[in-house]
Amino acid sequence: MLGVRETSVYGFQDLEAINQDLTELAKILNVGLEFYQSNSEGDLVSCVQASLDRKDGILINPAAYTHTSVALRDAIVAVSLPVVEVHLSNIYSRELFRHHSYIAPVVIGQISGFGANSYRLGLRALVDYLETLRQ
Amino acid sequence: MLGVRETSVYGFQDLEAINQDLTELAKILNVGLEFYQSNSEGDLVSCVQASLDRKDGILINPAAYTHTSVALRDAIVAVSLPVVEVHLSNIYSRELFRHHSYIAPVVIGQISGFGANSYRLGLRALVDYLETLRQ
Amino acid sequence: MLGVRETSVYGFQDLEAINQDLTELAKILNVGLEFYQSNSEGDLVSCVQASLDRKDGILINPAAYTHTSVALRDAIVAVSLPVVEVHLSNIYSRELFRHHSYIAPVVIGQISGFGANSYRLGLRALVDYLETLRQ
Amino acid sequence: MLGVRETSVYGFQDLEAINQDLTELAKILNVGLEFYQSNSEGDLVSCVQASLDRKDGILINPAAYTHTSVALRDAIVAVSLPVVEVHLSNIYSRELFRHHSYIAPVVIGQISGFGANSYRLGLRALVDYLETLRQ
Amino acid sequence: MLGVRETSVYGFQDLEAINQDLTELAKILNVGLEFYQSNSEGDLVSCVQASLDRKDGILINPAAYTHTSVALRDAIVAVSLPVVEVHLSNIYSRELFRHHSYIAPVVIGQISGFGANSYRLGLRALVDYLETLRQ
Amino acid sequence: MLGVRETSVYGFQDLEAINQDLTELAKILNVGLEFYQSNSEGDLVSCVQASLDRKDGILINPAAYTHTSVALRDAIVAVSLPVVEVHLSNIYSRELFRHHSYIAPVVIGQISGFGANSYRLGLRALVDYLETLRQ
Amino acid sequence: MLGVRETSVYGFQDLEAINQDLTELAKILNVGLEFYQSNSEGDLVSCVQASLDRKDGILINPAAYTHTSVALRDAIVAVSLPVVEVHLSNIYSRELFRHHSYIAPVVIGQISGFGANSYRLGLRALVDYLETLRQ
Amino acid sequence: MLGVRETSVYGFQDLEAINQDLTELAKILNVGLEFYQSNSEGDLVSCVQASLDRKDGILINPAAYTHTSVALRDAIVAVSLPVVEVHLSNIYSRELFRHHSYIAPVVIGQISGFGANSYRLGLRALVDYLETLRQ
Amino acid sequence: MLGVRETSVYGFQDLEAINQDLTELAKILNVGLEFYQSNSEGDLVSCVQASLDRKDGILINPAAYTHTSVALRDAIVAVSLPVVEVHLSNIYSRELFRHHSYIAPVVIGQISGFGANSYRLGLRALVDYLETLRQ
Amino acid sequence: MLGVRETSVYGFQDLEAINQDLTELAKILNVGLEFYQSNSEGDLVSCVQASLDRKDGILINPAAYTHTSVALRDAIVAVSLPVVEVHLSNIYSRELFRHHSYIAPVVIGQISGFGANSYRLGLRALVDYLETLRQ
Amino acid sequence: MLGVRETSVYGFQDLEAINQDLTELAKILNVGLEFYQSNSEGDLVSCVQASLDRKDGILINPAAYTHTSVALRDAIVAVSLPVVEVHLSNIYSRELFRHHSYIAPVVIGQISGFGANSYRLGLRALVDYLETLRQ
Amino acid sequence: MLGVRETSVYGFQDLEAINQDLTELAKILNVGLEFYQSNSEGDLVSCVQASLDRKDGILINPAAYTHTSVALRDAIVAVSLPVVEVHLSNIYSRELFRHHSYIAPVVIGQISGFGANSYRLGLRALVDYLETLRQ
Repeated sequence: MLGVRETSVYGFQDLEAINQDLTELAKILNVGLEFYQSNSEGDLVSCVQASLDRKDGILINPAAYTHTSVALRDAIVAVSLPVVEVHLSNIYSRELFRHHSYIAPVVIGQISGFGANSYRLGLRALVDYLETLRQ
Repeated sequence: MLGVRETSVYGFQDLEAINQDLTELAKILNVGLEFYQSNSEGDLVSCVQASLDRKDGILINPAAYTHTSVALRDAIVAVSLPVVEVHLSNIYSRELFRHHSYIAPVVIGQISGFGANSYRLGLRALVDYLETLRQ
Repeated sequence: MLGVRETSVYGFQDLEAINQDLTELAKILNVGLEFYQSNSEGDLVSCVQASLDRKDGILINPAAYTHTSVALRDAIVAVSLPVVEVHLSNIYSRELFRHHSYIAPVVIGQISGFGANSYRLGLRALVDYLETLRQ
Repeated sequence: MLGVRETSVYGFQDLEAINQDLTELAKILNVGLEFYQSNSEGDLVSCVQASLDRKDGILINPAAYTHTSVALRDAIVAVSLPVVEVHLSNIYSRELFRHHSYIAPVVIGQISGFGANSYRLGLRALVDYLETLRQ
Repeated sequence: MLGVRETSVYGFQDLEAINQDLTELAKILNVGLEFYQSNSEGDLVSCVQASLDRKDGILINPAAYTHTSVALRDAIVAVSLPVVEVHLSNIYSRELFRHHSYIAPVVIGQISGFGANSYRLGLRALVDYLETLRQ
Repeated sequence: MLGVRETSVYGFQDLEAINQDLTELAKILNVGLEFYQSNSEGDLVSCVQASLDRKDGILINPAAYTHTSVALRDAIVAVSLPVVEVHLSNIYSRELFRHHSYIAPVVIGQISGFGANSYRLGLRALVDYLETLRQ
Repeated sequence: MLGVRETSVYGFQDLEAINQDLTELAKILNVGLEFYQSNSEGDLVSCVQASLDRKDGILINPAAYTHTSVALRDAIVAVSLPVVEVHLSNIYSRELFRHHSYIAPVVIGQISGFGANSYRLGLRALVDYLETLRQ
Repeated sequence: MLGVRETSVYGFQDLEAINQDLTELAKILNVGLEFYQSNSEGDLVSCVQASLDRKDGILINPAAYTHTSVALRDAIVAVSLPVVEVHLSNIYSRELFRHHSYIAPVVIGQISGFGANSYRLGLRALVDYLETLRQ
Repeated sequence: MLGVRETSVYGFQDLEAINQDLTELAKILNVGLEFYQSNSEGDLVSCVQASLDRKDGILINPAAYTHTSVALRDAIVAVSLPVVEVHLSNIYSRELFRHHSYIAPVVIGQISGFGANSYRLGLRALVDYLETLRQ
Repeated sequence: MLGVRETSVYGFQDLEAINQDLTELAKILNVGLEFYQSNSEGDLVSCVQASLDRKDGILINPAAYTHTSVALRDAIVAVSLPVVEVHLSNIYSRELFRHHSYIAPVVIGQISGFGANSYRLGLRALVDYLETLRQ
Repeated sequence: MLGVRETSVYGFQDLEAINQDLTELAKILNVGLEFYQSNSEGDLVSCVQASLDRKDGILINPAAYTHTSVALRDAIVAVSLPVVEVHLSNIYSRELFRHHSYIAPVVIGQISGFGANSYRLGLRALVDYLETLRQ
Repeated sequence: MLGVRETSVYGFQDLEAINQDLTELAKILNVGLEFYQSNSEGDLVSCVQASLDRKDGILINPAAYTHTSVALRDAIVAVSLPVVEVHLSNIYSRELFRHHSYIAPVVIGQISGFGANSYRLGLRALVDYLETLRQ
């Protein structure tokens, strides 16, 4: 079981395509997936809190909230689940304020800059991590 | 063809194991690999410069030079090859000076925090990127 | 056609009066107007996103979100519509943290300090800009 | 009459216990209490605005929004009610970004670090303040 | 009566056109106008000082002096007249040093980014402000 | 047993009154109290050091030394007693240099802004904390 | 009546000479003088507090405590007497940390750089100020 | 012989009165005086340069140029004359940008905050300094 | 044709000598020269603006205005001529505030530290640049 | 002859042991020793001043005053004696504010991190330095 | 056994003398010594890595790399050997950028400012530390 | 005699051309030249050190090491030879981190932005400087 969250305003027309991609990859990796998308910081916080005891891990693209949301960070710390942070664009080749992430210090790792492929790499990273835990 | 560079002082006893892992994954992805490891900033710069016209891309773990080497950054910009930056540890949950990378703004993307798996994810990311270019 | 957004906590008792003022001015300028007010960053983001292909421009008073919302900035960039930013108070004669706007760098221009008149000036600025585009 | 607001992601399983504690203390202090909890910045802002003319004071734990919400600060200033800010943890022995509060400069006072007791101390502080005003 | 000052090095070939525009708008708004243009900080300071008791307000484009002139700021404070600050370009989408204005904290309001229209909007803003004072 | 320290230059005419207030509250809470006041950083340091093995906790208003005394901080860390920091004024609505406390990161918690009531709330907080330890 | 305070470690061999100089000038200016010198921040604070209702003004050379003592600043604010700050050396041509004074913002004025003459100028400045008050 | 410069926009109605005051004091101190006032940074620079070999010292109130003029600083350094810097207001109790002076590090000393008396004190300081040089 | 501007307060007694040197070098390089010197920022701005369409390039020593003049920078950008910036002294071995140049980012290049020779090198650099453009 | 100063709150139970250690080492090195310990900044300043002409050098552990005392620094500069600064703990592996020492720039050298051995090493360093001076 | 590393460009003509000094001291302290000197950051890193399991401790003068080398820091952390950092000059009385050491936070302690004696003191410190470990 | 050093990764295909250019210019100026190029910081340091007593001056393009190498700076200071720093590109119109040079404060002067011509100008500057020394 595995929860997937994504909030990016980039390429939201492609969100369905990305979700389909991830669903196919999830089948290959033999895991379940659940999607959640919202523009609201509070809803994302609630969604992370709700995954406690109901998911094995979280794949999150916090988009703009990466740089401003202490609430999202606190929620991730509170649920104590493995979290992987992904970004479509390379946030380090953009404006200076995008170089800082409130989320990165409290997740397993971060993948940034590979477009839709960031999600697929992130899903692999999370599943690999969960498998390592089980051993 | 594909050049691989790695300089981490972390787990350097495992370097051979990582290389073997990557070699196996390279076979699956149907690409060639060449390894290079050095403690010297100048040697890494020379190695990046030498890959011009001889490699299709670079997978690099700049380790400590991530945070201090403008020379490595300039070499990457000069060769104009697709580069993927990987880190064993999550550099954003460590000391503040490790949060800044001179390399990240001039590469395709960055993968940080998944241990040896960062290399495998990075190799996939680079090969996927090169395939997209060919289409 | 023209979308209008406003979220200020200042003088919200006067919001209706401001809207009536703007409606009258819109008639004189021969444009349509639609109002939206919310305390929620996420709702404002959704509202901006929804104006894509349905509005010709946006007049926005981001109030407190001026200084904290990367999400609102990203939404404005994503819809690629002309946006005018207005403020009731002169934000540059207030606390230092109000001198920085995440919104200002991605809009046509900013009008700050003229009370309710900021809205009327902003509507004129937006309509003039749209007319210039049409020529 | 007295409005109570609380949004902490810490120990939210204990929220009911804290509320019961406060209800008992409120009886002793001979005041009424109303609780509100939300993960949404916008909802908290609306709740503060709504207390105008209907409450005598506000006891608030702004949790993560302490450090990021100018909107909440503006709402508190707008309603002109006495507000007491409380924190479960000692925010000054945590990460540097938690040392700054957008809320503290616009409230009567701040109580930080006494766990659930922070609420009880805060309620006493608010009631004492209101009694002083009446004299 | 109303004094108008402008010093921009941008589009100075159009200065006459802008002045004509403003003259026409002044007739519609039923106010008098006087123009002043100089590259010298000291002359601008003298001009502002000289408007004491002789003008009802000042419309100023401090151009480069916006970011460096404490002398101009002090002159504006000294004359105690209503001043409106305008900029042709959106100074918040340019270099970081242009985001700070020594002038903005001591004027009624600022209008930035609407090209020559910034002047017309500024004149309206100033006249509206003066009319409000008279009521 | 319980040691109380206080050094504020504010309202020092009322110091006796505050001490009497605290003595009464101490009787209700069934604890002993000892007062100490000094303008000297060194004397305050010595007093904190002397409470080792002789007091159960410390209630301190470090006044101006809050912002400048590393020596007081080190003394508090050295004695390993529970300490509660109180301030008469809300230090977060005053000058920027008063927002930083060298003391706060090494105490249980901080209470700021409730005038003389800050002491009473602090005494309660300290006694409650000591009772919790005993359970 | 007039209190004089001085703590400089510079030229302390000349302290008596300076005091004699000031005594002579005081006779000319027809005012009384009382000297106080201490290396202890706490003693200086106590001395300032003690001058309340017993002196008409204070001439102070806070020496090193200029740059570090919030306690001295708070004492000066508390007594509400006119205070003149003097320095033997020009503190603005020395190390950067000497350019900041905690004392300067709460005194009438500051005189810095004229050696022993700084004291004489400071005494004149204080007496002139007191005379102006009396008119 | 002695040159006097003054540029303050404050109380410029009183400039004549100040000059008369200084003229009287100059007679008592047995020195000659020459006045210069300008709003132009360049004119002040030229005036300082022109005093080389023609004046024995300079009394200057650089007003707003205190905080912005490297040119004035360089001129003072170039002429190698003793210079005394005076300010009518206490620049350290005003906005933060007024706390920094480009001039102070290259003059004998600074006198700030005593209104018109700052000039008289400054003239005494300069004359005393010149007398000391002669001995 | 070529315009030369210079404003240094250093060695201005040698200005004629430098000009003669440059005139001789100009003959060798087969170009015309025109000199301009002023202490006034506004005059320098006007001079740069006036060279539009009348000069082929500008050699400038902005002296103190290097570090403070946005107006001069804007003038250089506005005329779109090749500009070479020279300094007599090595500005990087002097005070920290001299390390920043508003001019350098908008010119071809900068030459600093070679005394009067900086001018000769700058003239060569400008003429070489203009010749390259012609090819 | 040699003066020794020490103020550390760390291991103050061991102070006697350290003193005994140093006394033994002093015998071996053939120098005399005098100890001084105080919690008061002013007393330490007085002690340093008193060693003028009576001691040949000073071994000092300024403890917390390392980071806050300009007065101690000024006293060390004033006596012009060779001073060695020692710290029990490695101050560079502790909180950021402990990385800065007001004392270090005005002493011969600093020894930090070797526990009680820091004193012995410091005594050797001071004696060696004094011997070199004598040669 | 004990490894010694040194890279200083200062007094490198004396390097042999220092080595001889240390060899003599090593005999007295009954330890073995091995010297290594290089200008290359990479070689120093390799040398530190190579001492793993072959040396009991490292005495290092990282010279310029003190302030810039994260790689050297990482190597020291990786080998987990006791390291003592020494400097010939007092780095805290030199340029500001020399006040920060990447090495100091990961070594036992630092000795700075005693010339060639810094090495001898460092060797003693290291040997004493190793002896304490053995007990 | 004259040593020339160059390390730029820019246009390294043209390095031979630049060297030939410089060789021709050296003949005209009647000086000898020796070239050195390396990607290694340590090799550049060694090369600078080796020029002591064997060269009359150094022309250096430190490329990326300009911004990061304290070692190179220390080597330049140690050899006490006249050094001229050149850059192909205008480093002040590039990224902010390129605006700071560790090398510039310790050389005669810096020439930046004239492409290959920077080398020729630098050689002239160095030879002119050496000739001035001989006179």
